[in-house]
Amino acid sequence: MKQSHLFTRTRREAPKDEVSKNADLLIRAGYISKDMAGVYSFLPLGLRTLNKIVGVIREEMNSIGGQELQLTALQDKKVWETTGRWDDRNVDIWFKTHLKNDTELGLGFTHEEPLTVLMREHIRSFRDLPVLAYQFQTKFRNEARAKSGILRGREFLMKDLYSFSTDDAEHMNVYESAKQAYRRIFDRLGIGGETYVTFASGGSFAKYSHEFQTLSEAGEDVIYVHEGKRIAVNKEVLNDEVLADLGIARADLQEKKAIEVGNIFSLGTRFSDAFGLTYKDAEGTSKSVVMGSYGIGPSRVMGTIAEMWSDEKGLKWPDAVAPFAVHLIALFDKEGKVKAAADELYERLTTKGVEVLYDDRDSGAGEKFSDSDLIGIPQRIVMSEKTLAQDSVETKDRATGKVEMMKVESL
Amino acid sequence: MKQSHLFTRTRREAPKDEVSKNADLLIRAGYISKDMAGVYSFLPLGLRTLNKIVGVIREEMNSIGGQELQLTALQDKKVWETTGRWDDRNVDIWFKTHLKNDTELGLGFTHEEPLTVLMREHIRSFRDLPVLAYQFQTKFRNEARAKSGILRGREFLMKDLYSFSTDDAEHMNVYESAKQAYRRIFDRLGIGGETYVTFASGGSFAKYSHEFQTLSEAGEDVIYVHEGKRIAVNKEVLNDEVLADLGIARADLQEKKAIEVGNIFSLGTRFSDAFGLTYKDAEGTSKSVVMGSYGIGPSRVMGTIAEMWSDEKGLKWPDAVAPFAVHLIALFDKEGKVKAAADELYERLTTKGVEVLYDDRDSGAGEKFSDSDLIGIPQRIVMSEKTLAQDSVETKDRATGKVEMMKVESL
Repeated sequence: MKQSHLFTRTRREAPKDEVSKNADLLIRAGYISKDMAGVYSFLPLGLRTLNKIVGVIREEMNSIGGQELQLTALQDKKVWETTGRWDDRNVDIWFKTHLKNDTELGLGFTHEEPLTVLMREHIRSFRDLPVLAYQFQTKFRNEARAKSGILRGREFLMKDLYSFSTDDAEHMNVYESAKQAYRRIFDRLGIGGETYVTFASGGSFAKYSHEFQTLSEAGEDVIYVHEGKRIAVNKEVLNDEVLADLGIARADLQEKKAIEVGNIFSLGTRFSDAFGLTYKDAEGTSKSVVMGSYGIGPSRVMGTIAEMWSDEKGLKWPDAVAPFAVHLIALFDKEGKVKAAADELYERLTTKGVEVLYDDRDSGAGEKFSDSDLIGIPQRIVMSEKTLAQDSVETKDRATGKVEMMKVESL
Repeated sequence: MKQSHLFTRTRREAPKDEVSKNADLLIRAGYISKDMAGVYSFLPLGLRTLNKIVGVIREEMNSIGGQELQLTALQDKKVWETTGRWDDRNVDIWFKTHLKNDTELGLGFTHEEPLTVLMREHIRSFRDLPVLAYQFQTKFRNEARAKSGILRGREFLMKDLYSFSTDDAEHMNVYESAKQAYRRIFDRLGIGGETYVTFASGGSFAKYSHEFQTLSEAGEDVIYVHEGKRIAVNKEVLNDEVLADLGIARADLQEKKAIEVGNIFSLGTRFSDAFGLTYKDAEGTSKSVVMGSYGIGPSRVMGTIAEMWSDEKGLKWPDAVAPFAVHLIALFDKEGKVKAAADELYERLTTKGVEVLYDDRDSGAGEKFSDSDLIGIPQRIVMSEKTLAQDSVETKDRATGKVEMMKVESL
C-alpha cells in the first residue's frame, strides 16, 4: 500500500484522557481511534493487525476441529433468566436495551446460554459428539472502569470456543487439545515466552480453570510464577492446597503483574442441565452433555503485544502480526531517480506477495523515519540517492536496530 | 469438510413463527438459527456463504480505492446530538442503553457522524482527498416489524462506504465509480440480471439517490421498471418531473416489488459542516469536505439470493456464494469399496483446492439426496456401487438439474 493513499496520519499526542500505553501508542501511530472510554475504532493499520491475530487464532481453532459460526449481540432475557445470569445482582456488566414494545434485551457479554439452546436442535446422539464451535464476535461489557486502552474495552472482539462432549474423559481430551492450541497461538503471536499457563478458580465443575497470563506491568492480575515449571498460580487461589496439588513450594514463586490473554474453563453440565441439552448414549440412555468454554480477546492480545513490543520511539510488531512485512521508505531526489527505482521495487515486492507499506509521500527524511519507528513494521528498506549510487538499499530491523546495506537485486 | 463432522443438521420445519421464505429455507438447511424476531445467528454453512458475499464486496471496494476500517457499535450521544439525529423523533430505530453512571449510549444504525468526527484528525489538505473508507459492521435497528427473515434484521451485517471529496466534481467521479462497483458486485453475486439502478429521493444535497433494487415478491419496495433502459424509479418519487429528467414515458414502466440490496447517497456538506470537517485547497483556503455514503447489507443480499435462487426442494446457490463448490455424496456398500474410493476422491479434490462438502454419513440415499437439494451446493457428485462399476460418478447440476456420468479419472 502506498502511504500517500493511506488516510491515517500519525499524531504527536494521544487524547489527554488516554492513560494507557497501548492505546497511546496505537492512537499516535494511527492504528486505532478513541470514541469513548473503553470504545475504540480500528483504522486500516489496526484492522490489518487485528485480522492477522484473528487469522492465527482461526487456523489453530480449525486445527483442533473447531467449526466457526456467528452468534448475535442482542440477547433474549428469557434465555438468560433460565441460568440466573440475567439478574444484575449476578452479572454486573450487562448493557441492556429494549424493543419498541418494551421487551428487554441484553447485549451479549458471553454466549454459553444461546449456544446451548441452539445445540439442542443439532445434538442428538453420542455419534454427534464432541462438537467444538467458535466465533469471533463483538462482546459488550459495561465495565465501571475502562482505563486500560484496548486491554479492557466496553466493546471488544472476542474469540470464544465452546465444546460439547459426552463425558468428562472426552471433555478432558478436548480441553487438553484447546490448551495446546492456545500455547501455539501465543507462541506464533510473539508473546509465548512471557505467557504462563496459570491455575485459577475452577467454579462448580472443576477444581481449576486455566488462564494464559502474559507478564506485563500493564496487567490487572497478580500471579505467582514458577519459572522452572513454566506455570503460575493466580493470586486469587494461592494457598497450601494448591501448592501441594502442583507440587511446588511457595519459596520458588515470584509475584508478577500479568494480563489475562486467554482462559479455558470446564463448565460441566451447568448449562446443559439448565436447558436440557442431552444426547443418547450407545445404549439409548439420555445423558447431559459436558461443556467447556475457551476465550481469547484478539484486541486485548493486540494491546498486550503493543505493551510488550514497543520502545520510546514506537511499536515493534512481531512478524506474524505486523500490518505489513516491509516499510519501504523512499527519500526522493529532484530528478525523480529515487522515485522511479522505489516505484519499481514496490511493484516487484508486491507482485511477489510481500506486504509492503511504501512511504511515497513528499515528506522529509526525519518525518518518514520517525513515522516508521512509530508504526513499527519489522523490516525497513530505505532507498535514497546515496544508496542508489551503490545500487543498494539500507535495511533496518525495527526490533534489533540492525542496519545493513544490500544490493537492490538481491532483495 | 466431512458432513459427519458438520454439527448442523437439516430440519423438516422452521420455527412456527417464521413467515419469510428466505429464513424458512436457511433455517431448515442449517445455515442460520433464529434467536428472536429479526435476530439470527449464522451457522457454519451460513457464515461461509455470508463470507463469500463479504469477500466479493471487499474486492470491489478495494478496487475503487476503499480503505477498510471498523467503527464501533456503542455510540456517543453528544456526537449524534450535533446533527439532531439522537432525538427519537428524528430517528425512530435507535436501540439505546447506558453506562453505570447513567450516561446514555446508542447502538449504531449507521456511521456518518462518528466517521466524520474521526476524519477531522486525518484530513487536512486537498492532497489528502478523495478518501474512501468502508467497513463490514453489525448494525442495530429497532424495527417495529421484523418479519422478513434476514432481509430486515434488528441486528445485521452492513458494508458501509463513506467518501470524502474536495468538491462536487470529484465527488461525482467517486459516486460513479462506486455505482459501477455495485453493478459488478451484484453481477458477480448472481443477482445482477434482476437488479435495477433505481432513482430515489436524494435528500437536501442531490436531486436523486440511487438504490439497487432486486425484483422479488418478498420485497417491501415498489418500483417502476424501464426494461429498455434497465433503470427503475422508486414509487416514492415517481412524478412527471422525474419522468422528464430520465426521458422515459409512464406507459413504458412496469410496477414491480423489489428488495433494496444497496443504495448510494450524495451527502453534500451536511455532516462536514456540522462537525467542521474542512480541508485547505491549493490556495490555502479552508473548504468543507463533500461526502457520500454507499451501503450494501451482505446478510440482506444473502436472503435475496435465497429468495431468488431456490425451488420447492431447497436452495440453489450461484457459484460465487455457495458455501462449497461440490457436494460429494457417497452411497456406501457393505464391503467399504465406495467409502475408500470416495475418501480418496475427497482428498484429491480438497488437495487441489476444490471446496467440497463430503456426505460421509451412515444415512440412506433418500436422506442424502433430499439434504443435498435443501443445502443447494451447485455441483453434486454421487458415488455408489453402481457408478463405481463403470469407474464413474454421477454429476448433477443443482440449478439446471442436468445429470451426467463422468469417469472418476476425468474429474
